[in-house]
Amino acid sequence: MSKPESGSVKKATEQEKLQAFQHYEAFIFDLDGTIWKGSSLVPGAKEFVELLRAYQKKVFFVTNNATKSRAANAAKLAAMGIPASQADVYTSSFAAAAYLKTTSFSKKAYVIGEEGLVEELTAAGVSCFGGPEHRGKDVDWSQPDPHLEVDPEVGAVVVGLDRYINYYKLQYATTCLANSSCMFVACNTDARGHFSNSDQEWAGAGTMVAALIGSSEREPMLLGKPASFILDHLCATHQLARDKCIVIGDRLDTDILWGTQNGMGTCCVLTGVTSEAHLAAEDNKVVPKLVLDSVGDFMTIKGQLPSSCTIM
Amino acid sequence: MSKPESGSVKKATEQEKLQAFQHYEAFIFDLDGTIWKGSSLVPGAKEFVELLRAYQKKVFFVTNNATKSRAANAAKLAAMGIPASQADVYTSSFAAAAYLKTTSFSKKAYVIGEEGLVEELTAAGVSCFGGPEHRGKDVDWSQPDPHLEVDPEVGAVVVGLDRYINYYKLQYATTCLANSSCMFVACNTDARGHFSNSDQEWAGAGTMVAALIGSSEREPMLLGKPASFILDHLCATHQLARDKCIVIGDRLDTDILWGTQNGMGTCCVLTGVTSEAHLAAEDNKVVPKLVLDSVGDFMTIKGQLPSSCTIM
Repeated sequence: MSKPESGSVKKATEQEKLQAFQHYEAFIFDLDGTIWKGSSLVPGAKEFVELLRAYQKKVFFVTNNATKSRAANAAKLAAMGIPASQADVYTSSFAAAAYLKTTSFSKKAYVIGEEGLVEELTAAGVSCFGGPEHRGKDVDWSQPDPHLEVDPEVGAVVVGLDRYINYYKLQYATTCLANSSCMFVACNTDARGHFSNSDQEWAGAGTMVAALIGSSEREPMLLGKPASFILDHLCATHQLARDKCIVIGDRLDTDILWGTQNGMGTCCVLTGVTSEAHLAAEDNKVVPKLVLDSVGDFMTIKGQLPSSCTIM
Repeated sequence: MSKPESGSVKKATEQEKLQAFQHYEAFIFDLDGTIWKGSSLVPGAKEFVELLRAYQKKVFFVTNNATKSRAANAAKLAAMGIPASQADVYTSSFAAAAYLKTTSFSKKAYVIGEEGLVEELTAAGVSCFGGPEHRGKDVDWSQPDPHLEVDPEVGAVVVGLDRYINYYKLQYATTCLANSSCMFVACNTDARGHFSNSDQEWAGAGTMVAALIGSSEREPMLLGKPASFILDHLCATHQLARDKCIVIGDRLDTDILWGTQNGMGTCCVLTGVTSEAHLAAEDNKVVPKLVLDSVGDFMTIKGQLPSSCTIM
């Protein structure tokens, strides 16, 4: 896409969509705001994934949302009519767990996050605590000498969206991070997201990560989009070249930046947080290759494709 | 103080202390880590304040801690044997209230903070809510369509230390800040502080401010040290020249930076967060004019002073 002077945004032509379909081997979809919005499937998403699979394209789903495990996301996709296995889904919680494994991590992880993050860490064999089990905990300031002792075995603080964040958890993590050998791992730094069916934007994982940057005066290792970790893992596992991958998502600062920084094709859909106004804004520096109102808009090319070996 | 090559720190000489005593008209003390530590008075602090007052020096207490009101701090000082009126004390919560008044603020303030902040805002005639009354509140995610409605009359989000921070408050403030006409006011941005008698460092107001910078993608108006607002207010109220003021405090990033950035004298005491190692660290750029182990060390000059008009 070239940035138009007028402020209007040029949508991908039939020719551009067809070329993208033919060129790329792997289509990497964001989930929230791209495939679904809350509990509603984006119209045409199911049909486009079917079309891709009929032409032997590889399809993956990569989400920065760390509150659900890969299995839970795969189950939600399947329930919406898009069959998916756990291996097709990458979450920033899985990335955090996979990253810790690359460091031969053998200590405990302190979690600021929800069930999905604990599940992924546990599934990867990482001993962890905090998160849901520290929900509702307070420091007792009425005591004569309040003190919060932390487990000296904590070797990493792992932070994702935590909609039950409290001072106890922030203080626990801050005290762990005062030890410079304790790793600081951020699942993602999304400022806000849509976590309900309404248009309301909710404070995202970037809130919790920023809080701990503020208290610890340290910078985290970022694993979700736009960091390269998930793409490295995906390309290595599935023997893919980056220039044969295209990311399709609704966020400029995560999805599209992830693509432009890492040599992938990029397609921005307008079913989520990005509007035409954002794309056309003078200060926007993240420019997707293609823009579509919705993933469903890819379906117009169906009639122009050669017949596939699968009955559509 | 000149930064020593060896890593050791040169303490103020008798001559330097005497010169400071004679030159400065106003002595501006930090409280926590300088005058007191938790509930214990720093030895010699009471006597030094008495000495200053006997020589008609002006004495002020300026704290970034927004959890207690000026009246509560004055009462704590008095209980420790240092008589002080509310007018002698400046808190970052008072600064937030005074700042809103300078903008002819007539809307409501949403508070992330504790009782002291609510008290100062209320005393200044600012209608406010949130803070303590939103303690323990949760968003009900089990509802089919969770939504958090905010009061459209909110015209400012005011943030201080909140040891009962939760997602509800962060989301409320984030939603208010989505309105670009809503002001974002930070009492202070201290990363950590000593809020108990133990050596434990607790996550400070910088944690809550950073969280909201992360979620709102906006920058706040900072009112506590090292911002100039309190000093401007103090100098205007008491007809003081900045170069006749000296700040005595334990933090480089707030107290001493406040002094060096604003043309005051500076004296760093080692009874709080700053150690000799911090001062001597190669990457430290904040260099106080004087360093003392404790405010009490000023008392050695007593015998060298001319007799004052007050019986000591």
